[in-house]
Amino acid sequence: MIDKDKVILIIGLGLIGGSYAKGLKKHGYMVYAISRGQKTIDYALENGIIDQGSIQEDTELIGQADFIIFGLYPHTMIDWIFRNQQYFKPGAVITDVCGVKCGVIDVVQEKLRKDVELIGSHPMAGKEVSGVEHSDDAIFHSANFIITPTKYNTERGISFIRDLANLLGFRHIAVLTPQQHDEMIGYVSQLTHAVAVSLMNANDNAYLKEYTGDSFRDLTRIAKINETLWCELFFLNKQNLVREIDDLIAELENLKQKIEDEDEDGIKQLFIQSTERRKQFDK
Amino acid sequence: MIDKDKVILIIGLGLIGGSYAKGLKKHGYMVYAISRGQKTIDYALENGIIDQGSIQEDTELIGQADFIIFGLYPHTMIDWIFRNQQYFKPGAVITDVCGVKCGVIDVVQEKLRKDVELIGSHPMAGKEVSGVEHSDDAIFHSANFIITPTKYNTERGISFIRDLANLLGFRHIAVLTPQQHDEMIGYVSQLTHAVAVSLMNANDNAYLKEYTGDSFRDLTRIAKINETLWCELFFLNKQNLVREIDDLIAELENLKQKIEDEDEDGIKQLFIQSTERRKQFDK
Repeated sequence: MIDKDKVILIIGLGLIGGSYAKGLKKHGYMVYAISRGQKTIDYALENGIIDQGSIQEDTELIGQADFIIFGLYPHTMIDWIFRNQQYFKPGAVITDVCGVKCGVIDVVQEKLRKDVELIGSHPMAGKEVSGVEHSDDAIFHSANFIITPTKYNTERGISFIRDLANLLGFRHIAVLTPQQHDEMIGYVSQLTHAVAVSLMNANDNAYLKEYTGDSFRDLTRIAKINETLWCELFFLNKQNLVREIDDLIAELENLKQKIEDEDEDGIKQLFIQSTERRKQFDK
Repeated sequence: MIDKDKVILIIGLGLIGGSYAKGLKKHGYMVYAISRGQKTIDYALENGIIDQGSIQEDTELIGQADFIIFGLYPHTMIDWIFRNQQYFKPGAVITDVCGVKCGVIDVVQEKLRKDVELIGSHPMAGKEVSGVEHSDDAIFHSANFIITPTKYNTERGISFIRDLANLLGFRHIAVLTPQQHDEMIGYVSQLTHAVAVSLMNANDNAYLKEYTGDSFRDLTRIAKINETLWCELFFLNKQNLVREIDDLIAELENLKQKIEDEDEDGIKQLFIQSTERRKQFDK
């Protein structure tokens, strides 16, 4: 377990950072935050989500933190770390919440001070809204948490992040390499977002809104997308995502050909396969 | 309103036929059913879902019905009608529940006895399970109902089907031509099923089940699909569906190109457009 006398600093108090803070405060930890926007800090202080906060990159706050959790977008986090790493407490353990690992973790780990440690992690949770006022640590309880250690990590760092995930109540904790993580995420998350966006964009469909059922709503829910964050994530995982889109297009072409040929056996085989595979994903 | 002394006959007492029966019985109507399988009929009689039932194509039951609702697959229904239309009561009004209209309604209307009337309709409701034991008229309450009249239909027929949909509590009733219906359904229903199936089939993904979040589950829920029914529906709407698949592939290629080019403005525009469009579909 993480000692109660340790100071945890959250950089970027948005939906995810705020949800971490709430979960940690419930367990009695000392939580500090640095975030843009006085309103965010005021709200978090007034609601007991944090103990101290600043809108400045306050070197004193930074220097007190035993653990730092970055709730920032990938490039913002990378820049932040290199701008402030001289203020980190020796021995500090840092983690992130980024949806892509290669291109983030490796860049930071290579140039990070050797007496502090970055351990990559990805809480696979979210909401369609943002901001600390929507934060809620209950979003973690049905979610997966992925840890992506590399040769730069120690047992101490890995066990901090494992304890953190357990404390916050994640449903399942998995360990992957950054490469495995990004391959997996290219398929289960980024491809699905690419599909939802393309489904909405393929057709000028406003007049159809009276006719849609749950299927269409389910498949396009995530087409409401934060363009800045997801643009970063897509570019950072370009190779994997492009390969997944190509595979999906090939599969759609395959299905289309069977429809055109009225290949009844062929189509039914595809339906039977998709049914069997999907059943394994039922909760 | 439909007169309470009218007899309503349901042919095919599955999930949808059974849900119609339950809804009609709640309003005190006389409901008969013809369905394969003695268990289905017994269950429906024991649970008060129908007043009379038969596993035979019982000419006496058929001849008493003022209204007939077909809960059968498209080709099964077409064959059934032509095998039994000589027994229909003069003036009977018939409807269906098929997810495709052209290729079903036109085929039947052309050769149907002139003293009875088929009015096409599509209750856009369902569940991932089948059979009368899962039937539940509550599935209609959040669903759309589409009526597809043609030159063969009368005010009397249209008003029967409108009354039926109101009685069953559908959220929204719309009138479209069979062609408009099939174009719309090619996009909002069939394309989404084609996508869900292809997402599951594009990748041998069993090992990923610990890593999926709600997005992936939402986009693939309908990949569990009845292969016999959906094969019929896809073939009956081949032209529309193939065009929709082509449009989606073009949109995915467009997105992919922008990812490869790291065209930040281009990608963000796609995300902003999909977000705006999807917001209009929020309930």
